[in-house]
Amino acid sequence: MEDLNQQLDFIIELDRLKGVYRQALVKSDKNRFENSAEHSWHISLTAQILHEYAVEKVNISRVMSMLLIHDIVEIDAGDMFAFSEQKDLAEQEDKEIAAATRIFGLLPEKQFQHFKQLWLEFEGAETIDAKFAKAMDRVLPLLQNMRNDGGSWARHNISKSQVLKRNQFLEGLAPKLWVYVCTQIDIAVVNGWLRNE
Amino acid sequence: MEDLNQQLDFIIELDRLKGVYRQALVKSDKNRFENSAEHSWHISLTAQILHEYAVEKVNISRVMSMLLIHDIVEIDAGDMFAFSEQKDLAEQEDKEIAAATRIFGLLPEKQFQHFKQLWLEFEGAETIDAKFAKAMDRVLPLLQNMRNDGGSWARHNISKSQVLKRNQFLEGLAPKLWVYVCTQIDIAVVNGWLRNE
Repeated sequence: MEDLNQQLDFIIELDRLKGVYRQALVKSDKNRFENSAEHSWHISLTAQILHEYAVEKVNISRVMSMLLIHDIVEIDAGDMFAFSEQKDLAEQEDKEIAAATRIFGLLPEKQFQHFKQLWLEFEGAETIDAKFAKAMDRVLPLLQNMRNDGGSWARHNISKSQVLKRNQFLEGLAPKLWVYVCTQIDIAVVNGWLRNE
Repeated sequence: MEDLNQQLDFIIELDRLKGVYRQALVKSDKNRFENSAEHSWHISLTAQILHEYAVEKVNISRVMSMLLIHDIVEIDAGDMFAFSEQKDLAEQEDKEIAAATRIFGLLPEKQFQHFKQLWLEFEGAETIDAKFAKAMDRVLPLLQNMRNDGGSWARHNISKSQVLKRNQFLEGLAPKLWVYVCTQIDIAVVNGWLRNE
């Protein structure tokens, strides 16, 4: 029963991700802030819908798992806005590594290793699966902002070049999605939702 | 581009599930009500952690997909408390079937068929994958209520026999989890969180 008790402690700990809020807004729920648990659900499904656009075949089961767990570290480390200062992002990375050890460490050894490795693979963004997962994590806020008068971009005065850079993974991975993203970014500039820089 | 536009419309429509609230409470976020999007994330991960307890091997990738989509119909049909009257539950079923056709129908034909079938399989609860997915959907509220002074059970005056019946899928599927659940239910009765009936 010891393994089971550890697993149940981990499952209950996950509940806390529902209280970690991001900069993204949920338009359909009175534009409240989005939490990282519901965001993880949304991008896992987004990956499932869009993976046919990947030029190199991705293992969608692994991608979904990565996306379901990718933000769990925020339970300890909190969410940091994607367009924060480089120095703050580097500090955040250290906090997240410690968080991964503590939180996945609640699990029995074999699952701890499995999930920590999967999370490190996502963070490393070197394998096709991890790159595609990262791309999904980045494209969804664009879709949300485009349907919400610029959403978090407009509130934080973000520029076109920042969003292009953040989504550039798509260029080689899924060119059709990349073309779509570039078109949307141009529309956002015309609408005044992104600075033209 | 037509397929892509349909897919993106579906992805944006999903946002609305974040505004569908359930009877479960999020203890770690000031005991607010839980929404169906974050719940779907939580049970998908719960399935991934616990599937080793299934006596017959489940296809965890299919189970995760089922759990990610299982509540999407609530965008139109709303959430109904598990322990509602039978008449209301039957009406809800009709609403959910119409919702599945409309919402999955936003997708290109092939994906529409795929997801609608997967949802129907979950609802039918006849395959091993669907039964295991259902069991996860039912066991998580138990875990949440046990860590939260009875949670939605206590607020709705639920009885032991109702919770036993609802979790009975586990008995044959994953006997170790069933034993755990029975023990927890007995503790809930002793604590006054479930009526002893």
